[in-house]
Amino acid sequence: MSISTQWKSPVRIFIVHAHPEPNSFNGALTRAGQAALSGAGHEVVVSDLYAMGFNPVSDRRNFTTASDASYYHQQSEEANAAAHNGFSPDIQAEMDKLFWCDALILQFPLWWFGLPAILKGWVDRVFASGGRIYGGGKWYDRGVFAGKLAMCSVTIGGPPPIYSSGGLNGPIAEILFPINHGMLYFVGFTVIEPFLVHAPARIGHSERQEWLVRYRERVLGLVRAPTIAYPKLADFDDTYVLKSI
Amino acid sequence: MSISTQWKSPVRIFIVHAHPEPNSFNGALTRAGQAALSGAGHEVVVSDLYAMGFNPVSDRRNFTTASDASYYHQQSEEANAAAHNGFSPDIQAEMDKLFWCDALILQFPLWWFGLPAILKGWVDRVFASGGRIYGGGKWYDRGVFAGKLAMCSVTIGGPPPIYSSGGLNGPIAEILFPINHGMLYFVGFTVIEPFLVHAPARIGHSERQEWLVRYRERVLGLVRAPTIAYPKLADFDDTYVLKSI
Repeated sequence: MSISTQWKSPVRIFIVHAHPEPNSFNGALTRAGQAALSGAGHEVVVSDLYAMGFNPVSDRRNFTTASDASYYHQQSEEANAAAHNGFSPDIQAEMDKLFWCDALILQFPLWWFGLPAILKGWVDRVFASGGRIYGGGKWYDRGVFAGKLAMCSVTIGGPPPIYSSGGLNGPIAEILFPINHGMLYFVGFTVIEPFLVHAPARIGHSERQEWLVRYRERVLGLVRAPTIAYPKLADFDDTYVLKSI
Repeated sequence: MSISTQWKSPVRIFIVHAHPEPNSFNGALTRAGQAALSGAGHEVVVSDLYAMGFNPVSDRRNFTTASDASYYHQQSEEANAAAHNGFSPDIQAEMDKLFWCDALILQFPLWWFGLPAILKGWVDRVFASGGRIYGGGKWYDRGVFAGKLAMCSVTIGGPPPIYSSGGLNGPIAEILFPINHGMLYFVGFTVIEPFLVHAPARIGHSERQEWLVRYRERVLGLVRAPTIAYPKLADFDDTYVLKSI
């Protein structure tokens, strides 16, 4: 990889890592990426959700404030907390890392065609409305994190054909659409094509090592990695349906 | 609704309910469905995940057994637990309800284009491999729950156009694909078209009452409700790609 495909100055990378076994291949990927980025002079912060004991259940514990103590309406409480600095410390800490970073990586095994619950709950709780993370016209290409990069790095139990366009499990791009488009692009990130490793438990040690090499190259070249092209807000009419071309 | 669209004999309905506010519209839907079904002589069991304090984080606490205490490989532990009756009591109780029921309803608000984490983790933990819930050739139309019905009942913040085929958020059928196809059909359920209520907080009391009437009709007529047609295992070749017709 030539230097032109790498960042020219130090950047800040935030890795949110969700796997219950530290010595899993997910763990190896995060450590490989972290070491490669740090070695190249970049700053890396990892939220290891299992190690942190992160609570994924969204409820009143998201807040130190309460707008209505008798009826819990989450978006109202989020708006109130955004106005009064009322997010719980565990959520505020994650928000701070999001604002700090230039690029976000979600590292997870595909469980039931989505995020493991501990990571889904990280999104449920941290991606708060009321203008802090989205809302008030701040979404998609006008989102809070516009200009930042985000990528999913995913291990998948089955082989590629079963996730192809005619595959039994459905196309991987469709399976990841709610994450890439609905979570990452929704809050403004430019979404990089996911880094996918299929069946890491079955491919054997040497092939896993090759995937770690590829992953180091990917994270060091993140700034030039292929991105997913999504329509922009200006492409939609006032009912949020695509304008006919 | 004529009697011919309803079950002719009592059936067993399992509702998994995921909302932090008991007096939410999700709560009203579950209570309306429960009352209608019970009133018609059916048996209803509700797992109210927030009220139960259900733990959605999948890890060693899923099991009373351990196959390998030094390295946590979830599917191996699931297979071991399936062989040695080693699921934790909270998971075993949910499995028992799944085997007991004739029809499963997932009641939830669409959060970040998917299940709230507490419900995603219910799937992560309860839908265990090793032959108990899937595995050993038991999946999709040959799945453990083949012959049973399942349906998502979903509240959605935004209005219908934004979830249409050209809509900004993407088509609702694609957003729900990982749930309907990847979770419910994967374990064998015949999947009923979802019951969707858009923007319940904004439509006003009388319109919400109309939706409750429609929901009672839907659950009483579940056996005749429209289902989603998915291909069957026999339609795929031995790499699990659709055979060309």
